[in-house]
Amino acid sequence: MTLLPANDTPQYAYETDPAAIYRQSFSIVRREADLSHIPDALHPTAVRLIHSCGMTDLPQDLTWSDDVLEAAQSAFAKGAPVFCDVEMVAHGIIKNRLPEGSEVICTLNDPSVHGLASELKTTRSAAAVELWRDRLDGAIVAIGNAPTALFHVLEVIAAGGPKPAVILGFPVGFVGAAESKDALAANPYSVPYLAVKGRRGGSAMAAAAVNALAAGLPEEG
Amino acid sequence: MTLLPANDTPQYAYETDPAAIYRQSFSIVRREADLSHIPDALHPTAVRLIHSCGMTDLPQDLTWSDDVLEAAQSAFAKGAPVFCDVEMVAHGIIKNRLPEGSEVICTLNDPSVHGLASELKTTRSAAAVELWRDRLDGAIVAIGNAPTALFHVLEVIAAGGPKPAVILGFPVGFVGAAESKDALAANPYSVPYLAVKGRRGGSAMAAAAVNALAAGLPEEG
Repeated sequence: MTLLPANDTPQYAYETDPAAIYRQSFSIVRREADLSHIPDALHPTAVRLIHSCGMTDLPQDLTWSDDVLEAAQSAFAKGAPVFCDVEMVAHGIIKNRLPEGSEVICTLNDPSVHGLASELKTTRSAAAVELWRDRLDGAIVAIGNAPTALFHVLEVIAAGGPKPAVILGFPVGFVGAAESKDALAANPYSVPYLAVKGRRGGSAMAAAAVNALAAGLPEEG
Repeated sequence: MTLLPANDTPQYAYETDPAAIYRQSFSIVRREADLSHIPDALHPTAVRLIHSCGMTDLPQDLTWSDDVLEAAQSAFAKGAPVFCDVEMVAHGIIKNRLPEGSEVICTLNDPSVHGLASELKTTRSAAAVELWRDRLDGAIVAIGNAPTALFHVLEVIAAGGPKPAVILGFPVGFVGAAESKDALAANPYSVPYLAVKGRRGGSAMAAAAVNALAAGLPEEG
């Protein structure tokens, strides 16, 4: 008689090869998502956005200007900085896939922002945009959290201030998010944009948009 | 005849008071979301999770162990560290609402992780979990991106290794995410957990779960 050890330990079988995970992921997205209304050149970006949130119905809410890819690529080529509303977006951007020397900047935790927000009677996220002014002209703006930050970027432009090369609009939530992205899509300043309409959004999508516009998909890299 | 200045500048009207934004947000969530199947003590956590992603149908996919809130609060009270799979989760946690001295730790970018991943034939995210071992016992684990990290935490426990106080399972995506969270919910080690079933998840949800379990809602703070 052989005593076998008691074994109620589950064995976890899962894919551990990063390249295979990416490949399978993007394959599922391409199979399930309807991208037919999206220009071919933006398919990698749409795929990456879906990949970031796990939702294949995201494309129905995407909105963009036809020049957004060209504008983003041109800005990256010129070494434009990427301004983010929150640290989460900044930390989701894959730095080593951006052109060498690209800067990713979040000013939300700058010591001056608290006072600025009180002075301007607005949120810290919107006040932090004030610190972008010197380098906002021709920059890439990625908003992944705060509707007020997106609104304030539009206000800066409306007042004749510096104009970013492209705005990636992914604020999320219930108060102002949908409205801020509608305002972005209706912007009369010809600022190229990509956004997800409605309440959905978030830092992961904003970072994914930057990563995709800068470098396409990992499977193609 | 009076010449008025040409004015096609849109005026943006939006809420700029942070407290009002929180209040309105949580009020909308409570009005629209069905939390009837969720224990009262977890409502603030559910509300905060919905708030983080803009989706009021999220509660239908939430899964938890009944002891998760108590386990998390007890771990925080003991000064347990919070281990995160990615920097985005770490940067979404509101440090000043955690108990004083709480540490938020992400080892993904530790210089040893690349080599460890090759050695263990797994992803960097799973390899980074190896660096948690010394302090994993009684810790809070927040997974917001990588199914492989969640699977590997379960493997460490299955092999008789250190056992965290609570696991917050929010990996996102198409390969292994749903399966890893099913495995978490079925864990036979009595590890308390909170997770969102299926493909949805993400860093913002994982961070929101930590913030809510540590400190409730801002409207109540």
